[in-house]
Amino acid sequence: MYNFVLENPTKIIFGKNTVDQIGPETKQFGTNILLVYGQGSIKKNGIYAAVTNSLKSSKLNITELGGIRSNPLLSDVRKGIKLTRQHAIDVIVAVGGGSVIDTAKAIAAGAVVEHNVWQFFRGKKGIASALPVCTVLTIAASGSEMNGGMVITNDETHQKLGIGNKKLYPKVSILDPAVTFSVPASYTAYGAVDAIAHCLEFYFTTTLVNAHVQDRFIEGLIINIIEACNILMIEPDNYEARANMMWCATMALNGWTAAGLGRVGFPMHMIEHSLSALHDLPHGAGLSIIIPAWLRWAQKDHAEKIAQFADRVFGIDTGTIDNNAALGIKKLKSWFTSVQCPVKLSECSIKPGEIPTLAEHSLIQAKLWRLKEYSKETIIEILTIAA
Amino acid sequence: MYNFVLENPTKIIFGKNTVDQIGPETKQFGTNILLVYGQGSIKKNGIYAAVTNSLKSSKLNITELGGIRSNPLLSDVRKGIKLTRQHAIDVIVAVGGGSVIDTAKAIAAGAVVEHNVWQFFRGKKGIASALPVCTVLTIAASGSEMNGGMVITNDETHQKLGIGNKKLYPKVSILDPAVTFSVPASYTAYGAVDAIAHCLEFYFTTTLVNAHVQDRFIEGLIINIIEACNILMIEPDNYEARANMMWCATMALNGWTAAGLGRVGFPMHMIEHSLSALHDLPHGAGLSIIIPAWLRWAQKDHAEKIAQFADRVFGIDTGTIDNNAALGIKKLKSWFTSVQCPVKLSECSIKPGEIPTLAEHSLIQAKLWRLKEYSKETIIEILTIAA
Repeated sequence: MYNFVLENPTKIIFGKNTVDQIGPETKQFGTNILLVYGQGSIKKNGIYAAVTNSLKSSKLNITELGGIRSNPLLSDVRKGIKLTRQHAIDVIVAVGGGSVIDTAKAIAAGAVVEHNVWQFFRGKKGIASALPVCTVLTIAASGSEMNGGMVITNDETHQKLGIGNKKLYPKVSILDPAVTFSVPASYTAYGAVDAIAHCLEFYFTTTLVNAHVQDRFIEGLIINIIEACNILMIEPDNYEARANMMWCATMALNGWTAAGLGRVGFPMHMIEHSLSALHDLPHGAGLSIIIPAWLRWAQKDHAEKIAQFADRVFGIDTGTIDNNAALGIKKLKSWFTSVQCPVKLSECSIKPGEIPTLAEHSLIQAKLWRLKEYSKETIIEILTIAA
Repeated sequence: MYNFVLENPTKIIFGKNTVDQIGPETKQFGTNILLVYGQGSIKKNGIYAAVTNSLKSSKLNITELGGIRSNPLLSDVRKGIKLTRQHAIDVIVAVGGGSVIDTAKAIAAGAVVEHNVWQFFRGKKGIASALPVCTVLTIAASGSEMNGGMVITNDETHQKLGIGNKKLYPKVSILDPAVTFSVPASYTAYGAVDAIAHCLEFYFTTTLVNAHVQDRFIEGLIINIIEACNILMIEPDNYEARANMMWCATMALNGWTAAGLGRVGFPMHMIEHSLSALHDLPHGAGLSIIIPAWLRWAQKDHAEKIAQFADRVFGIDTGTIDNNAALGIKKLKSWFTSVQCPVKLSECSIKPGEIPTLAEHSLIQAKLWRLKEYSKETIIEILTIAA
């Protein structure tokens, strides 16, 4: 096990009927609130009303920034920073999924500095402080509710870049699984794929081969995510399945799965970011295409670990490592298909001729994340498997 | 899954050569330090020198309270409170295992109130604040390094009582697995049993039958603890095994295994406390006696869950639930024996005639922990199985 420091200060309030705690929890951090949310689904399912009632009952002043879209945009972050300054905002409240929470984090970091907020993402500036962020999660997927990561798309350059910083952990995150009953099957599955992808990045790209504790933890999460997602495809309002999915997705990327693994790359995310940036695919749909391709490419180096995954997650044990690994990848891919997630670029109308452009784009993130082993040729090789 | 709030503020610094960070980390909380430690093993293995050098390099003033024994005593807590007041102590630094850390926590809570500190343990007073505690862990076992629990023995009444409070989480805990190379085989095994016991209390005494996420997490921890302990019986200085053991023991009782399980009893600990209080047994040795007896007693109600444990942890699958459960208990018991832990009261010279006295003693803890289902007769029944 490698040395690590683990410190996760986010307070999680998990369970039924917890949304109305957002007012009292937020109040600890100030009175002027910037309320950030998405495309309006929260106005249909009652979450918007519940959140604003709670904030108003706590006598908080609300400024709104709605309309945040998936693959969230830098232009919205800039709008939020402007509003934050105009209204002397003390705390940002994000009501949504990863896109909304990431936007809130970027506003929180950008509002306290003079320079262009994009410089954080380009690695030109470090984050020394940020306004407090509280969240009400509405989709199980990104894990952003309990970590310091954020991913933003620059709508001028079409670059989608992600960074992490310990100042960006939300102070409080409210996770009510019942809030996700209305998430459609497609986005429930994309969320499951995203959470599985976080697990797999740690599982396969650590330089540590025998990560006993972390391996079992991750395998358990993946088994549970698959089980819960299968139930939700048939019963979208099964509370237990929504609860398991939500908690697994949070734990997949809150530091616990990674603690002790040393340097971990995020190559599948690095490649995927070009798909969702240039084609505006849902992130989970991009990942379900990239994961099997990356695994097939990686099998030459990681056959043993992929075989362990195949055995422990899917019970595949044919006797030979290579066979087990190949069957494990096949099984995961066919599970993605079973929950209606794409597994080929062609399913999303992305043509082989676009692969060099996608690779070029991914290379920017590869450099920023110091994934030196990924040249343009390597990324093209992986994308070609995904064609 | 039940509703829960999870907030664990302890900063973990884990790995090789991390002990000398104790000075700079402690300094954030003040300059007058009460250094609490055990029976002197840290003076032999160099840890005492490393800690005091680091504290002195950070220009901290050290007052010492050494000699804390396992099953730590209220009289030592009182000594610590007195020293804390005399020397205007700002922060308590615990260098040791659960006994030392629990003593430090009790001093930290007791020093800021006027009343008798034992009133906290008797449930007569609540803990509203405490001095900050930092720790350097020297044995993998109790989990006290990352939770708000503490267990103290009143040397006047011979009561051993435990309580938990969120004000008692250590601020910083330094976990260097190499520090535990010199822990003898017996205490390594007792530590493993203690960590397994924490896992099993959550696994078996929740009112939730299908705790999907938590079950897999706990099963993974137990598998890893057994694997690591087996290695350490032969190679006490195997770093990877020490690291896995240490991290599993911390995770077994830091809130993660319990999150979402609802009301969890600690019946095995409740019964064990009478053994280690009245016979001064090592806590882990008391637990290895009580666990198989409790499981055999509980089999009538929990056969299915015990069978799941038998299957997933030991690969036992004979076809019938009762058979699997019985074999699972037998296998765990024989593993305890294989690492030289006692599994019968008679092995520790505790006679059947003492059982009523032990049960009477356990009943005090049962009442304080509101384990209403445990009458004196029930406890006698379990202890009789353990005879």
